[in-house]
Amino acid sequence: MKPSRFRPDWSEKPPDPGTYRSIAKYGDPDRFKHPSDAWVRMMQQEFGMTDADFKVKQDEGHERVVLDRPPALDPAQIEALTGIAGEENVATDDYSRVKYSSAKTSEELLELRQGIVREVCDVVVHPRDKHDVQKVVQYCDAERIPVTVFSGGSGVNFGCRPYRGGVTLVLSTHMNQLLEVNELNQTARVQPGMFGPAYEEVLNNAPERFGCERRYTCGHFPQSFEYSTVGGWIVTLGSGQASTYYGDAYDIVFSQEYVTPVGTFKTLDYPATATGPKVNDIMKGSEGTFGILVEVTMKIWRYMPENRRRFSFMFPTWEAAVDASREIMQGEFGLPAIYRISDPEETDRGLKLYGVPGALDKVLAPMGFKPGQRSLCLGNVEGDKDFTPLVARKIRKVARRHGALPLTGYAARMWEHTRYTEPFMREDLNDYGILLDTLEASVTWDNLHRLHQGVRAFVKARPGTICMTHASHFYPQGTNLYFIFLAKMDLEEYVAFQAGIIEKILEHGGTLSHHHGVGRLMAPWMEPHLGKEQMEVLRALKRHFDPHQIMNPGGQLGLDEIPRRR
Amino acid sequence: MKPSRFRPDWSEKPPDPGTYRSIAKYGDPDRFKHPSDAWVRMMQQEFGMTDADFKVKQDEGHERVVLDRPPALDPAQIEALTGIAGEENVATDDYSRVKYSSAKTSEELLELRQGIVREVCDVVVHPRDKHDVQKVVQYCDAERIPVTVFSGGSGVNFGCRPYRGGVTLVLSTHMNQLLEVNELNQTARVQPGMFGPAYEEVLNNAPERFGCERRYTCGHFPQSFEYSTVGGWIVTLGSGQASTYYGDAYDIVFSQEYVTPVGTFKTLDYPATATGPKVNDIMKGSEGTFGILVEVTMKIWRYMPENRRRFSFMFPTWEAAVDASREIMQGEFGLPAIYRISDPEETDRGLKLYGVPGALDKVLAPMGFKPGQRSLCLGNVEGDKDFTPLVARKIRKVARRHGALPLTGYAARMWEHTRYTEPFMREDLNDYGILLDTLEASVTWDNLHRLHQGVRAFVKARPGTICMTHASHFYPQGTNLYFIFLAKMDLEEYVAFQAGIIEKILEHGGTLSHHHGVGRLMAPWMEPHLGKEQMEVLRALKRHFDPHQIMNPGGQLGLDEIPRRR
Repeated sequence: MKPSRFRPDWSEKPPDPGTYRSIAKYGDPDRFKHPSDAWVRMMQQEFGMTDADFKVKQDEGHERVVLDRPPALDPAQIEALTGIAGEENVATDDYSRVKYSSAKTSEELLELRQGIVREVCDVVVHPRDKHDVQKVVQYCDAERIPVTVFSGGSGVNFGCRPYRGGVTLVLSTHMNQLLEVNELNQTARVQPGMFGPAYEEVLNNAPERFGCERRYTCGHFPQSFEYSTVGGWIVTLGSGQASTYYGDAYDIVFSQEYVTPVGTFKTLDYPATATGPKVNDIMKGSEGTFGILVEVTMKIWRYMPENRRRFSFMFPTWEAAVDASREIMQGEFGLPAIYRISDPEETDRGLKLYGVPGALDKVLAPMGFKPGQRSLCLGNVEGDKDFTPLVARKIRKVARRHGALPLTGYAARMWEHTRYTEPFMREDLNDYGILLDTLEASVTWDNLHRLHQGVRAFVKARPGTICMTHASHFYPQGTNLYFIFLAKMDLEEYVAFQAGIIEKILEHGGTLSHHHGVGRLMAPWMEPHLGKEQMEVLRALKRHFDPHQIMNPGGQLGLDEIPRRR
Repeated sequence: MKPSRFRPDWSEKPPDPGTYRSIAKYGDPDRFKHPSDAWVRMMQQEFGMTDADFKVKQDEGHERVVLDRPPALDPAQIEALTGIAGEENVATDDYSRVKYSSAKTSEELLELRQGIVREVCDVVVHPRDKHDVQKVVQYCDAERIPVTVFSGGSGVNFGCRPYRGGVTLVLSTHMNQLLEVNELNQTARVQPGMFGPAYEEVLNNAPERFGCERRYTCGHFPQSFEYSTVGGWIVTLGSGQASTYYGDAYDIVFSQEYVTPVGTFKTLDYPATATGPKVNDIMKGSEGTFGILVEVTMKIWRYMPENRRRFSFMFPTWEAAVDASREIMQGEFGLPAIYRISDPEETDRGLKLYGVPGALDKVLAPMGFKPGQRSLCLGNVEGDKDFTPLVARKIRKVARRHGALPLTGYAARMWEHTRYTEPFMREDLNDYGILLDTLEASVTWDNLHRLHQGVRAFVKARPGTICMTHASHFYPQGTNLYFIFLAKMDLEEYVAFQAGIIEKILEHGGTLSHHHGVGRLMAPWMEPHLGKEQMEVLRALKRHFDPHQIMNPGGQLGLDEIPRRR
């Protein structure tokens, strides 16, 4: 028998209903994913923590939510909203107001655990359909009541924090259905509040559910897939893990219907059009500041999991992995669906953390795949049965030419098991004062190493800070860098540290956001990043759509004055 | 010896410099492409014309351009422009003013041939660089002088007709260089006035011209390729003949720099970004109404003509051709570059007109490929050497499953010879009072036949009217329909006929324009088509960029009052 090793008492109990913890927790109340023993050893080593440090939990947030701030709307206004959406769909209780004003930034989680609540909405409305949304927006525009939308609630940038109070519209409660599958056009008409798994499930079972001839897939699988909605993907410009093949959310949208203070409209269903600047595209990424997405027609693809080909490689260096990836993305033999490369720190930690057999690790170094240098690559190819083997073969060839060791599809399969579950760990880490967060940027090939090195130099200058980086969304012209930070750090320090990283990203030529959107977190950097001329374009659109500044006001996208966060 | 057949005395003489004809003529003055004898026979038969009708040319436009309208700007203003761009780059002579105010609508050609000149600019300026453009725009904004851009001059919608006079900026004179090839990013930074062939030539010869390791291609080959410019492709939302693989001009743009009355800005170089609505996309298709594109970074591709695979098929019916095409575009095995299907009228006429051996035509009917039903398909595949044979093989397989007869790459090669030359024929046809024009629309698969039938029913109701239709730009969600009309018709009748066709396109669910842009030709239908809400978005942008209404004013895009055309 192996000697027993210390294991922290990870929480396995669903948070009590009504508590702060129940709002801060990611995902379903009864789902958990705990750090492995290897994770604990790593954290103890890196952060100088002892077993004792993992014995007392802090700020667990088990208290019941009490707000002590009556809604600022007057009773007649609440009554009017009740008249529109029905009494059962309007809530003013403390818990609802806090829950639907919160998402998943580190700052929110840590504050909630301490019972700190910042700005909240005054009333929560669950519209039954787009007509309810239209009536609420019209009413709020007339009454100058702010309107914020909440749907999946997985955002990481304060995008649905109601800085000016008012109404929060929850779209995921009722407006969550797939309305139509058009097999000829390969499109699906869907309500914005539909969650990823429900959407994908119906598409996969289109023959049974819609009498279709074929099965389909939505092609969009962000890490937050299980707890994010179709509408959220679009208005925040998300990217799924298979975006290299299927495209970003921006690309997957076919047409949209929006309710705005100045009117409701649906963009037209055409595969292309040359009728001036495309309003269909202008609305994407507007993050609730122009209007509310109430229906969307999405492109869909044939569901052919039987053709999927997985691959993984070890490259001798990060530079070799990047060069090979560029060659693959520019090779014009077809693109993989999932494709990821991990920098040396992520690769080495990954090998330790995710149970790659120790034996394999031992043989890699002598073969020239040295710790601190080697880079893991994994992914898959999707599509037609003759297409996927060709692309997989070509990828293997390019990888080999850059010195890679093929590792079969094993690592890719392993990764798939954890593809959606990592965010669950934050709860356990937070219990012991450890912070896990991410920032990400898009970058052209010619600037990738400069950005990677610049951000890492800043992060690693802080002792006891883990920084794992991967690239996971590829284009012929470049990719993204996704930085994961892990440290024992309090909130005060973190907020400053995070701002420092954002500054470094911009200083080294990354975009302010690749797929996390802007919200208020990134808002202060919007104008320095895009320039005054581009910001004024967005502000002109804002003035047009929302003359009374009711749509998600308070700094969203950097359009109006950005309130202090804390 | 074969009996001699009548052949019209086609013009082979370059138009005299300074004449109306020299402006109306398409392409280089000394380049011609005459209708074949088969064309003449077809026209005689269809239009009831005799040899005599092809003996006397009409409205040849050999007169010298005389305008008799002094520039409306005062001398101090012209002097100021001269001070900005240099005396040699400012012209106020009649010929320049007419030449750079005209493009290639049927209406313009026929009117020019009659010596009729509608609205013209007051002064022509050939800016040397983007700083000249900036100074001119600033000056004109202060002085409230309209500014219109002319570049290739191949437009077919009155997009560069200066309805309010003022300054016309000619970008193709000096601002026509490729500035930089970035091999890592596979992008090219280019000035907007660069013509297609010059751009492609430099990219093909990137090793010799820029010391690159590889050769590249621009991927954008519209029929007007030889006489259109990179900037024009973008601001009018053009599509090239290989767009099914490379994408439309909209997709090929990486970043842009614009001079507007409210400032100059360059969008950032990122493969993707989630920083709100994308100003880079908002500017595309603005047709000179927001500002002037002065520099653009384009995506480029590896030039690998050795891998190209051509194909052609005969389908038994148009319906089978459409079904097979949809299957191919949705098959997820990779897309062809060029891909075209011709409806039965175009197919039958094409067989006669383009010299497919008579013997082949004779064997087709008994095999089930009957005149009036059969549909020709042709195209090619571009890309990696292992990708192109796979895609070609898959296309063949799908085509066969839909009853197609493979015809080798012969028809595709033949088509390539004429891919840019068809517009030259208009001069010859106009000489004998025959009108050739085109209209086009994008459409989803589920509406394709309705649109095709609806437009054809209208066109063919007019006796003696040829209507050939093809689809030539494909997407998983649909395609375009490109209608070619040919008739003996005067201008008066044509203008009404054209309006009738546009109405039919909209009535049957096509978009107002797939890749011809809007200009003023389509402007009256913009609001009925897009709806008031979407038009108000475009108008809000217009107000922002151009508060004094100087940028291409007079109905462009339907943004302001649309003047009567004639």
